[in-house]
Amino acid sequence: MDRQFNIRRTLIGEPLPTNEASHQRLSKLKALAVFSSDALSSSAYATEAILLVLVAAGTGALAISWPIALAITALLLIVSFSYFQTIHAYPNGGGAYIVSKENLGNNPGLIAAASLLIDYILTVAVSVSAGVAALTSAFPALADQRVPLALVIVAFITLVNLRGVKESGTFFSIPTYAFIVGIFIMIVWGLIRIATGNVPAPHEGQIVTDGLIQATESLTLFIILRAFSAGCTALTGVEAISNGIPAFKAPESKNAGQTLIAMVAILGMLFIGITFLANHFPIEVGGHGGKTVLSQINAEVFGENTVMYYYLQFATLFILSLAANTAFADFPRLASLIAKDRYLPRQLTNYGDRLVYSNGIILLAVSACVLIALFNAREHNLLPLYAVGVFISFTLSQSGMVIHWLKERKFEGFKATNSWRFKLGMNAFGAFLTLTVGLVLMVTKFTEGAWLVIVAIPILIWMMAKIHNHYKEVAHSLSLDGLVPTVPRTSRLTDRNHAPLVVMMNSLNRSSLQALDYALQMSDNVRALAIAVEPEQVEVLRKRWSGWLLDSIPLDIIESPFRNISEPLIEYLHNRDESDPAKLPTIVVVPEFVVTDWWAKFLHNGTTSIIRAALYQDQIARGHGRPVVFVPYRIGDTLYQPDVIGRVEGQPSAD
Amino acid sequence: MDRQFNIRRTLIGEPLPTNEASHQRLSKLKALAVFSSDALSSSAYATEAILLVLVAAGTGALAISWPIALAITALLLIVSFSYFQTIHAYPNGGGAYIVSKENLGNNPGLIAAASLLIDYILTVAVSVSAGVAALTSAFPALADQRVPLALVIVAFITLVNLRGVKESGTFFSIPTYAFIVGIFIMIVWGLIRIATGNVPAPHEGQIVTDGLIQATESLTLFIILRAFSAGCTALTGVEAISNGIPAFKAPESKNAGQTLIAMVAILGMLFIGITFLANHFPIEVGGHGGKTVLSQINAEVFGENTVMYYYLQFATLFILSLAANTAFADFPRLASLIAKDRYLPRQLTNYGDRLVYSNGIILLAVSACVLIALFNAREHNLLPLYAVGVFISFTLSQSGMVIHWLKERKFEGFKATNSWRFKLGMNAFGAFLTLTVGLVLMVTKFTEGAWLVIVAIPILIWMMAKIHNHYKEVAHSLSLDGLVPTVPRTSRLTDRNHAPLVVMMNSLNRSSLQALDYALQMSDNVRALAIAVEPEQVEVLRKRWSGWLLDSIPLDIIESPFRNISEPLIEYLHNRDESDPAKLPTIVVVPEFVVTDWWAKFLHNGTTSIIRAALYQDQIARGHGRPVVFVPYRIGDTLYQPDVIGRVEGQPSAD
Repeated sequence: MDRQFNIRRTLIGEPLPTNEASHQRLSKLKALAVFSSDALSSSAYATEAILLVLVAAGTGALAISWPIALAITALLLIVSFSYFQTIHAYPNGGGAYIVSKENLGNNPGLIAAASLLIDYILTVAVSVSAGVAALTSAFPALADQRVPLALVIVAFITLVNLRGVKESGTFFSIPTYAFIVGIFIMIVWGLIRIATGNVPAPHEGQIVTDGLIQATESLTLFIILRAFSAGCTALTGVEAISNGIPAFKAPESKNAGQTLIAMVAILGMLFIGITFLANHFPIEVGGHGGKTVLSQINAEVFGENTVMYYYLQFATLFILSLAANTAFADFPRLASLIAKDRYLPRQLTNYGDRLVYSNGIILLAVSACVLIALFNAREHNLLPLYAVGVFISFTLSQSGMVIHWLKERKFEGFKATNSWRFKLGMNAFGAFLTLTVGLVLMVTKFTEGAWLVIVAIPILIWMMAKIHNHYKEVAHSLSLDGLVPTVPRTSRLTDRNHAPLVVMMNSLNRSSLQALDYALQMSDNVRALAIAVEPEQVEVLRKRWSGWLLDSIPLDIIESPFRNISEPLIEYLHNRDESDPAKLPTIVVVPEFVVTDWWAKFLHNGTTSIIRAALYQDQIARGHGRPVVFVPYRIGDTLYQPDVIGRVEGQPSAD
Repeated sequence: MDRQFNIRRTLIGEPLPTNEASHQRLSKLKALAVFSSDALSSSAYATEAILLVLVAAGTGALAISWPIALAITALLLIVSFSYFQTIHAYPNGGGAYIVSKENLGNNPGLIAAASLLIDYILTVAVSVSAGVAALTSAFPALADQRVPLALVIVAFITLVNLRGVKESGTFFSIPTYAFIVGIFIMIVWGLIRIATGNVPAPHEGQIVTDGLIQATESLTLFIILRAFSAGCTALTGVEAISNGIPAFKAPESKNAGQTLIAMVAILGMLFIGITFLANHFPIEVGGHGGKTVLSQINAEVFGENTVMYYYLQFATLFILSLAANTAFADFPRLASLIAKDRYLPRQLTNYGDRLVYSNGIILLAVSACVLIALFNAREHNLLPLYAVGVFISFTLSQSGMVIHWLKERKFEGFKATNSWRFKLGMNAFGAFLTLTVGLVLMVTKFTEGAWLVIVAIPILIWMMAKIHNHYKEVAHSLSLDGLVPTVPRTSRLTDRNHAPLVVMMNSLNRSSLQALDYALQMSDNVRALAIAVEPEQVEVLRKRWSGWLLDSIPLDIIESPFRNISEPLIEYLHNRDESDPAKLPTIVVVPEFVVTDWWAKFLHNGTTSIIRAALYQDQIARGHGRPVVFVPYRIGDTLYQPDVIGRVEGQPSAD
């Protein structure tokens, strides 16, 4: 135990007291690193996702990626503006869950919650997989180690997060900014080369679209919509800031709003810039080299094996790993919010030693690892699952804001300015747009994997409803409603000595005699019970019982030829309950071994566990419970002496 | 629970009472099937094992397999005769373990025990893998499914054995005899074809040795010894009958001895016959076709795709699967014998519902599955591990018999006949031979995997010694030695009402009030304890405490800013123990939820388990234990009423 404890301390640090919770806040610069890495890093794969769809319609179709990217950027701006309004309307953290629940009701809230939880898990799986792809693009020899590499990265992020969010903010700032700066240099340098006509000629298998759309027969509207849907992954992560407002330094809303504006501006530029370069430099889409589009642009702009090339590949790996961290900041917080509303297990509301929601962190890490293993750490297989949940929560969140403004306009001052009309209009437009895109996403990606999410969300909602009902039942069952406070009878009782106790006594030894003594200490109404599996046990036990002068205590022996303990015990107890004059339930006293070596537990028959399970099942089945007393006896001791523990020193003997 | 129970009943049958144990006996015909399948089925791979070694020295060396097979058969006869003597000297089951322990002492007994246990596990892994090889020889398309096929077979045998040995005897007789008959037909038909010169010409890659040893430079003595060692796997399983004597019908020894003679005669003929055919029909050794030598002979003798061909392949699969059953009959019996001597966990002595040692069966099945998975179900990779343990136990068993005869000769009658000299001589010769072969095995197979067994045996012995010491310590610790029987004080005590109880009470609800009532029913000396993780809990609890008129009971509240429950609880309890005037240890009363749905357990914080673990650890650390009382409350009930459970109806109020 102590050693385990020390390993834990080394890995996650000393425990922090509860009242330090509010000190763990992030500056804007750090918050941008923590909450924006998801959104920003999607620029590493969003362009490629568009191209991968279009290439099916022939290389000539690739140039349409440019108008698609512009359309997605417009969508990004509208969604962001909606969230900007949310941040100011919900300064305590206005994620889609809270906004939907407050304005649309419980069920839409749960839909938003389920969508978001699933998407956070996908964020981790997709981002880490894409990060590994950046690494294997630079080092193709590692391509076979995709899954182990991805799992190691998840494990590392998990540990960092178990240490606490402030430290991870510091830790993660540098790589995020390194990525932003690196990509900006690449875009600027690439634009200069295009402007000066210094663009390499395509090799075999590579293509340059030059931004000219060549007509191909197969470029249908459906494929354009699919490409648009694929590119919408660029929008994932935009909502992260609005969920995480309480982690900002005061004034939270203002800081969060400014951070959102900065994030969207940077994201828009990165996405458009990368897509533009992809249209003007020779690249190979979906080739068997397994190199990402971004790494190919990178290699073309800076040259392979240059310092800048490796710098940018590593910066991509790092920001994508950190994108996973966005989810690690938000998933546990959202899960604890939902758990506080009693829709998820309440363990998710527990602060860990380091004031983070450790259980939520671990749940997220395990789920993401399962996804990574199932999808072989290939982000483009995971992407079709990804954006569906995001757009469901976008739509719900903005519909909720529409209702919010309708409520707000009734308050004076607000009404006077008439600004609610504009705000409502913006959110309504956003809701309509994201709903449309969401439906397009579901249809175009359904067979590619989106169906999994469309199935998972209702299942998750059903589970949350079931959990909620359980907690409601618990609360109802425990509630003191209808009871009248009464002064307890703490003075001596005449019936005190009649509490019926049964001591399990399959053989006579120091442990069972100690249990008997404790029972006698608590009541006069004590019996002993043995369940004899071997017929010869009966005689032996009766003889020893008399030999130890215990005949004044009734010894009941049940023969159990089928070697079953549970059933005869339960039957016996019910008979005892019946025959008790006061109808008090019989209390079971179980002598129990305590062994000092962990492995020694496996050397004993586990009768204790069998008895405990039997009593538990009996109570489930018949309702009426009975206390069970475990009297431990440490093996290695011969401490028990009837005169020491059973009879208190200095007290008169009763006989 | 009920559903689980029914599945178990369907799979393994209704429980049998303990006194039916002796009725589960085997006739000679069935016993031959149960105990001989291991020995007989080794003829399916022993010849191939020899050839696989020799082929490394060139195809010309293969013909030496014939004299090697003859030498191994001679060894088989000598070892069997030794075991025949053992069967009559130890009618209650004279396995190597018992014979070594009684005559040579504890440590040699443990060496024999460890060797045998390991070899039984290997029997299952090797036999099932070889059985799958027989199947994939006939159906090469299944070759990739080796491991899953092998695991399914192990699972099936496990189930059959959990049903009980008598039924498995009936069940297994037919395939064993089918194999014996099939191979005899093949040998006779093959001999006729050789005699009539009707032998097919070899295809490309095949060879015919025609029994002529061609001189090859590379055929060293070491390779001949290795080939001999490899062939010694034919001897595995010979000891099975001597371990299983109690499963025979009376007169046990006589029946067992006759069964042994029958088994050895059949085995010798099968092994020699197959080796002879392998030398006269064209076969490919270790080729990439993956077909076993036996299946190639089978195809040559009867023709491919004939009914006889498939009949014999399936018979081989079945007897090899049943060979695994030998181990399932013997391993649990031996393990229970060793466990009765307290060298293995005593759970291995438990009869299951169906009067078989269920735990031993499951332990064997799991171990074998691990080996199969690790070695990819390839029997020729497992074989080098296999025979080492067998020959260690042979040597110990026969050395033990030498001592046995030295003791026996002192008894009159026996002395007069002087037959002890002959018997002692036979066993001494057998011991010398098996020791020599065992050493040859260890040396020649060391690097091929035998080292694993040579390392595993001492580790197993160390574990057994450790387990034995633990049980000795338990017995010493529980023993009543040094205690004097005293009449217990069952009459009313003046100190009865002073047993110190502490009720864990983190909130005031029906469950915790019920626990409080039970505590008050047992003692006057009751306190309540709350460990407050949130500072605001303290005030709330104090107010409710007064509101429910409980001020007469002391309420202790500990604040735990680090959200730890265990440490403050243990510290508090030690302080209470100190301050108790009678120095009685404080008894902990824990209210506990009982939930009817299994999944609902995961929705509660598990404070009960934390408290239990903390008390357990405390007792390990400091020695003195304290009883812990669990008071269950079934969620879904609102049964608790202070006036119903807390105060017995019809009794006077105390205030």
